[in-house]
Order: sequence, then C-alpha cells, then structure tokens
Amino acid sequence: MSRGLLFVISGPSGAGKGTICQAYLKEADHTWLSISATTRSPRNGEVHGEHYFFLDREEFEQRIQDGDFLEYANVYGNYYGTPRSLVEEKLEKGYDVILEIDIQGALNVQSNTDEGIFVFILPPSMEELKARIIRRGSETPESLIRRFESAFEEINYVSRYNYAVINTTVPEALDSVRAIVRAEKCRVGRVLPNIKELQGEMPDGKKDHD
Amino acid sequence: MSRGLLFVISGPSGAGKGTICQAYLKEADHTWLSISATTRSPRNGEVHGEHYFFLDREEFEQRIQDGDFLEYANVYGNYYGTPRSLVEEKLEKGYDVILEIDIQGALNVQSNTDEGIFVFILPPSMEELKARIIRRGSETPESLIRRFESAFEEINYVSRYNYAVINTTVPEALDSVRAIVRAEKCRVGRVLPNIKELQGEMPDGKKDHD
Repeated sequence: MSRGLLFVISGPSGAGKGTICQAYLKEADHTWLSISATTRSPRNGEVHGEHYFFLDREEFEQRIQDGDFLEYANVYGNYYGTPRSLVEEKLEKGYDVILEIDIQGALNVQSNTDEGIFVFILPPSMEELKARIIRRGSETPESLIRRFESAFEEINYVSRYNYAVINTTVPEALDSVRAIVRAEKCRVGRVLPNIKELQGEMPDGKKDHD
Repeated sequence: MSRGLLFVISGPSGAGKGTICQAYLKEADHTWLSISATTRSPRNGEVHGEHYFFLDREEFEQRIQDGDFLEYANVYGNYYGTPRSLVEEKLEKGYDVILEIDIQGALNVQSNTDEGIFVFILPPSMEELKARIIRRGSETPESLIRRFESAFEEINYVSRYNYAVINTTVPEALDSVRAIVRAEKCRVGRVLPNIKELQGEMPDGKKDHD
C-alpha cells in the first residue's frame, strides 16, 4: 500500500472550495476529508468527530505544545486546528487526505510539512465573488466589505500554491481537481517504486540497472 | 491567446505511446501532433507534410547548422528530426503540441528547450512488453532480443521525465494523459496572467497588489 497524498484545497471565502470538496468527496475512493479540532462550543446538530473535534482549551494548548497541529489559529478567542496525527494515520494507510482550509491555514501547513499539494480555488470574477458573498446573506454591510476586501488581498497568495482552479462552474472545477489528483499520482517520483517492481520481473532476472 | 503547451510522449517501443497519442489526438482540441523531418525515401502511401517532411541531406544538414531541430538523430545513415520552427509556430498560436518520440529524442529535446512536459509511457509488465514486440511480427529473433533488452535499459531514463503512465489498458492510460494535460494547465504559473485580469476587475479599481 503506497502512502496517500495530501491535498490542501484553499481559497478566499465565496470562491466555492467547500462545494467543490464535497462534490469531489462524493465520487472519490480512498479519500478522507480532514476534520478540524476547535475549542468553541458545538452548535446545534454538530457532532464530535464528524463536524469537529471539540476540545477544551487546556487539551488544545497541550497539543499545540506537542506539535500535533499541521496548522492552527486563534479566531476571536477560539482555537481551530488540523490534528497532524490523524492526517498522518490516514496517509500512512494509503488514503488521500483533503484539507479544506483558509489561506492562512494553508500557508501554515506549508511551514509545518514537506508534503502537500496546494490547490487555490478562484472565483470566475470579482463581481461573482461579491454576488456569492452577498447570497450567503449572513453578513452586515461592513463585514461584507471586509470579507470582500480580504478576499481580494488573499488572491495574491496564489503564487505560493501549486495549482489554481478557476471555479466558473462546479462540474468544470471538479474536472480540474480530479485531473490534478490523477496527474499527481503519475508524477515520476511517485511511480518509481512500481517501476522497480516492473524491472524486477525481467524474465532473465536482471534487476535494478543504473 | 495564451501559448500552448509542449508535451513529449515517449517510452520504449512496445509500451504503446503511438496508440495512446492517436487516441488522445482524436478527442483533443487545439492540439497538434508534430511531424518529423527525414532524409529517408518515402514508403508507399507516405505523404510529405502528413507522415514526414522528406528533405534531402543537404537541406537537413543546413537546418541542423541553423539550429532548427529540437532533436535529431542519424539512424542507419538517415536523418530524422523534429523541426523547431513548426513547433514554435503552433505553440505561439495557442496549440498544444505533442511530440511522440523515442527516449533518446526526448532527452535531446530536454537539452534544447526549457519547455516541455515529459511523459514516459510504461508497459504493464516486461512479459507484456515482450508479447507486444512479438505481436508486431516484423522482427527477427535477434532484433527482437535487442529491442527487448534496449527497452529494459531505457526504462531507467524514466527518472528524467515529469510523469510516468503505466499503459495497463489504453482507456486508463488515456485518462491519465488527459489528466496530466488538464492539471498542467492549472499550474499556478500558467494561470497567473488570468488572475491578474481577475484582479484588474476589482470594482473599486484596485490593481496588481503585492
């Protein structure tokens, strides 16, 4: 069983990373969506281990000290983070792992691991991004402007990613994500162990030439 | 119109690169299969500009001196080569260009250009490779053994490629090639110009932040 791949799917809010990840997960085999840990209280219907791992502050801070977060942040007094041990366990078992996280989180993951294929989801236009943020409806005019300006600024971080997918329509963006996963599995460094096997089969018994 | 991509599809004989390229070209838009130049005589039914560009030795050698080959080789006294100017013209017009060439040719292309995404087509097993070479039928036992041994040696060059596709079945290999093309078009460096445009659309007129 070869090790799974870690895909970090990220982008400004309103770009559609959540929708794309959900659509991808529906069809993908052997793929696990990482679950965040948080110190905030569960909301109605949120299940521990399904939506979040709900930890108390003491445990969260202990885990920070133990280096058990691929990334974490403190947002308005609550911690959020990606537990490294779980991600590691799934990768080791051959599962691909998807982290759907914001841009700051993605950049932190980059500092904390050598693994990870970083995919930035972009809106088709800034007008459309604005429309999507407005459609969510839960924003005051001030927070809407702040969210939109921050999305605009965040797009500059795209250059730190490996791939950028423009989310014109979900099926098209999904095709691209699917292609990125398949192509990454064909990268020579990842196929090499299978090739060694192939050469081991040489009928006259030759092995591992240079 | 953004510049097309150059894909070099290569592999040992019998791995199936020709079949895969033909299948890919049938479905791909804006894609051009490069045509080699050669000094050998046309065989029955071969058309200049369709199967090969048939050049006389003097013209071929002049073009070598002018640096107009992305790669060339002299095989049993005849020259074969990939004309750089035609490839350049198609790329400039936004066409993806496929070079279907042997491994030595692919390595020469690597020395002669900074462009190129290198895809190595592998047989599913050495036994299957042998069977495929035998099925072609046009070989003497000696040339069969030589061809097979050379295929075995050539597999070691896979590490100089970007991608390796194991040709278990043509539809699966085709899926992988298709995915590689699509993923390469999502590489951040290639999408960046579109992103600059996206940011240029910022309703309040902000442009090109850092």
